[in-house]
Amino acid sequence: MVKAIFLIQTEDRKGILASVVDFFYSRGFNILKCQQHTDSYEKRFFMRIELDADDMKTSRKELEDEFGILASSMSLEWSCHWSDYRTRVAILVSKTSHCLYDLLARQLEGEFSAEIPLIISNHPDLERVAEQFRIPYYCIPVDGNKEKQESEIRELLRKFHIDLVVLARYMQILTSEFTEEWKNRIINIHHAFLPAFQGANPYKRAYERGVKMIGATAHYASEDLDQGPIIEQNVVRVSHELTPDGLKEVGKDLEKQVLATAVKAHLEHRIIVYKNKTIVFSVER
Amino acid sequence: MVKAIFLIQTEDRKGILASVVDFFYSRGFNILKCQQHTDSYEKRFFMRIELDADDMKTSRKELEDEFGILASSMSLEWSCHWSDYRTRVAILVSKTSHCLYDLLARQLEGEFSAEIPLIISNHPDLERVAEQFRIPYYCIPVDGNKEKQESEIRELLRKFHIDLVVLARYMQILTSEFTEEWKNRIINIHHAFLPAFQGANPYKRAYERGVKMIGATAHYASEDLDQGPIIEQNVVRVSHELTPDGLKEVGKDLEKQVLATAVKAHLEHRIIVYKNKTIVFSVER
Amino acid sequence: MVKAIFLIQTEDRKGILASVVDFFYSRGFNILKCQQHTDSYEKRFFMRIELDADDMKTSRKELEDEFGILASSMSLEWSCHWSDYRTRVAILVSKTSHCLYDLLARQLEGEFSAEIPLIISNHPDLERVAEQFRIPYYCIPVDGNKEKQESEIRELLRKFHIDLVVLARYMQILTSEFTEEWKNRIINIHHAFLPAFQGANPYKRAYERGVKMIGATAHYASEDLDQGPIIEQNVVRVSHELTPDGLKEVGKDLEKQVLATAVKAHLEHRIIVYKNKTIVFSVER
Amino acid sequence: MVKAIFLIQTEDRKGILASVVDFFYSRGFNILKCQQHTDSYEKRFFMRIELDADDMKTSRKELEDEFGILASSMSLEWSCHWSDYRTRVAILVSKTSHCLYDLLARQLEGEFSAEIPLIISNHPDLERVAEQFRIPYYCIPVDGNKEKQESEIRELLRKFHIDLVVLARYMQILTSEFTEEWKNRIINIHHAFLPAFQGANPYKRAYERGVKMIGATAHYASEDLDQGPIIEQNVVRVSHELTPDGLKEVGKDLEKQVLATAVKAHLEHRIIVYKNKTIVFSVER
Repeated sequence: MVKAIFLIQTEDRKGILASVVDFFYSRGFNILKCQQHTDSYEKRFFMRIELDADDMKTSRKELEDEFGILASSMSLEWSCHWSDYRTRVAILVSKTSHCLYDLLARQLEGEFSAEIPLIISNHPDLERVAEQFRIPYYCIPVDGNKEKQESEIRELLRKFHIDLVVLARYMQILTSEFTEEWKNRIINIHHAFLPAFQGANPYKRAYERGVKMIGATAHYASEDLDQGPIIEQNVVRVSHELTPDGLKEVGKDLEKQVLATAVKAHLEHRIIVYKNKTIVFSVER
Repeated sequence: MVKAIFLIQTEDRKGILASVVDFFYSRGFNILKCQQHTDSYEKRFFMRIELDADDMKTSRKELEDEFGILASSMSLEWSCHWSDYRTRVAILVSKTSHCLYDLLARQLEGEFSAEIPLIISNHPDLERVAEQFRIPYYCIPVDGNKEKQESEIRELLRKFHIDLVVLARYMQILTSEFTEEWKNRIINIHHAFLPAFQGANPYKRAYERGVKMIGATAHYASEDLDQGPIIEQNVVRVSHELTPDGLKEVGKDLEKQVLATAVKAHLEHRIIVYKNKTIVFSVER
Repeated sequence: MVKAIFLIQTEDRKGILASVVDFFYSRGFNILKCQQHTDSYEKRFFMRIELDADDMKTSRKELEDEFGILASSMSLEWSCHWSDYRTRVAILVSKTSHCLYDLLARQLEGEFSAEIPLIISNHPDLERVAEQFRIPYYCIPVDGNKEKQESEIRELLRKFHIDLVVLARYMQILTSEFTEEWKNRIINIHHAFLPAFQGANPYKRAYERGVKMIGATAHYASEDLDQGPIIEQNVVRVSHELTPDGLKEVGKDLEKQVLATAVKAHLEHRIIVYKNKTIVFSVER
Repeated sequence: MVKAIFLIQTEDRKGILASVVDFFYSRGFNILKCQQHTDSYEKRFFMRIELDADDMKTSRKELEDEFGILASSMSLEWSCHWSDYRTRVAILVSKTSHCLYDLLARQLEGEFSAEIPLIISNHPDLERVAEQFRIPYYCIPVDGNKEKQESEIRELLRKFHIDLVVLARYMQILTSEFTEEWKNRIINIHHAFLPAFQGANPYKRAYERGVKMIGATAHYASEDLDQGPIIEQNVVRVSHELTPDGLKEVGKDLEKQVLATAVKAHLEHRIIVYKNKTIVFSVER
């Protein structure tokens, strides 16, 4: 079944839900799922609605255009997604392989509704993994000229019609031009429970602070390092016996899990960003 | 703000959501929250809708009657709840006090939208706790005549206009007459992760089986022991060093937490029962 | 059974474990439990040993003196504890009652090997709780003279022969004189996952940052606010629907649990402090 | 650093710890870690001791022989392991690939101190995965003759000098001859929180029972299906919206994690089996 998914947000006021629901009902759609709530603190209306699009009477473009007219009249921020479109994902890595293996295995397992047409790295180390999974690997080292390297990467993203960039332990800081152009379309994994231990060496600092749990955080990349909207976080209890290297080992599983969960939420069109926060609607299957 | 909450279920088909939403919108209600999903396996529609009822133009009875007409025409199973009504709760206990303390402290903390007009027990032991919290305590021992004891309890429940019975480690099996009369209005806490370790001595059996986590389960009481609809469950990791008594100690926290979570879900009208299962809509505040 | 518990730390080198074990074995002790590990990063030896002290042939003082001689010769830092001594605990509170209720109920449940001879507060609000549990309540307001207030508190602690101070949401910052005198004998609960959200209003800041889990941290109080050695932490997943007040409600359970766990670890002599970190040996029963 | 690891159990009585510690100390060993406890319910002594074996003065065989003499005199059950030996692991699979991918990626990541010289299956489906990771794949279908199939598998295990068999979603029941010969050397993953949902179709049964969490259990295979000693378990909270297929998807991550954790515990010589239970000593690094 092909589904149409609408993500909607606006200032809260009466009648929005009814108007939206009526819009689809009057066009003969079966509504599969409707999740709506109001953030009473922000006075903000958030909604995700999922429709059976199998027997649509109009074209997709017509539907979107008509909804656009309604949305304009009610000042809705919205996006529309079709479940049969496979999002095109580029994975960026450096030398660490655990997140890459995890993403590629999940892709083969059919967990992602996506294509992964290429892997990009600033190091040659993980080409062997790309080969194992038969995905083109582009090694673009920084070589002292970061600007040039980034512009080559961005050129590749365009050429491959990429929709989403996943930083799977990519250890370069992106320029604000890059994060601005790709706003809410770059997912990064940080190996700490943000906002604790922003920046470098979080496991060593976690060891020194003597925390009893370590965490991982997946977030959209923004201009300010490790400060973009958080999509997913998790933690695991750690023993006082673990050294910084031990924490790093234990943290790998967490990073894989948290990153994959965030990528799935994005691919399934379950995320709305408001201010510096995300609403992540729950999973359904 | 007074809220009206409608819980609705029915066989899935087109137009239900739209009709329900339109019903409230056309009567001028602001919809605060709408949660709806379809169980594609059971082909069943479930919905919880929360309305601002502060400036209602009709009486509550009129609204319910009118909704009843819509519901009949669409074969909806439904219930309506008003947030300013304080559910009347009776707590039944035996000799163990940790769940009782927890419930009473939460009540004083204002966590429950409820009154607790009485505590009933088959033993005198916990009268001291009831006194501490100044709640009437009725000790009704079994004394070899279980039928008589139960009928006295049920008489008390009627007399005090009780809406919900909470079995806070009440160690008597209820008759099917009792559970039938109070269907989906008795919450029990079982000290195991059901369906594992149904029946007696779950901690001892957990020890013997060598499980690595122990659990607790809150469920509506039904005729068959420990088989009613599950409302909430949780687990905690346990050490191989723990004896059965150690597991019991560790389990106490779990029992308190799980029971309180289930009671809250009931009091906040977030539970729909279908077949032998519950839909528990998520918390919102 | 009376147990003697020794907590030992020192620079790592050969033969320490053997010497300690031999010391007790040659004196006829049955060793109930021995936990020892070396932090390879810090090159530090940590050990907890638990002995059956029922049929001791010497006095406690003699044993401690003799061990002191061994310890001196090997430069061990150590402490000795007897399981039949009931630690004397003072609870300090302000206006929030959930942690206080939780601690007092646990005390009545027999979970703590402790006496709680008094409760101290800078506000009169919680006297009713103290009365419910029949524990003397001392209200010592700050009244613009913080030094005087603190000196009265410290006087009370002396008078009541207090061993451990528990700050159960006590909302005053302690002077460094106080924390220095009571080093590693004051346990505080902070309502965030330290080092995230140190200082005031952690729930509001957690809301604004859009974290997906909130936490609580119990730690020994030190001169620097929220920077003392962490004893216990935990987190709970939170919904994007929760307002700051909602997070606060959800966090209450976490605070209770984390504080009680830390207090238990202290009372059971399972904590060694090294630098700004704790080793918390696992529970056993 | 090469380490020697001794796992020891026996009936509890005085002096065992001291004798064992003295044995190693008098031979000049540095004891890196010593974990010992007594199960007071079973009156059973359990111990794991880890030694620096870099500058041993005797051969390994001499050490083991000498320890054997001590052990005999004290009726110790024991085993000795050397950290530089790489355990030889065979993975058995059927058609499901997620656990296999996970194990092979971890192996390449260096997480396991092991060799994986072959993969065996009763189906040809996963040969492509074996090829990706360049590991020989033996497809041995049942073809109506289970006895013959099993004897071919056991022949392969012998030929490849296998130490440990991992059933990574291998969907054939093993004969008691097989499980007896390989007692405590076959690790199976069951996709439920045992003892709940033993046997077939656990996710479907979990759906029907309406549990709020699903689990996975890794255990040593024994004659009785799903009843061997449990090594590791974990659970994850599930939504009421999930169908049986949805639970299956969510469960995959759990299965991978639980199986890998159990395999690691075995490879790091951290497991003692007593009766039908395991003692799993904690991780250290």
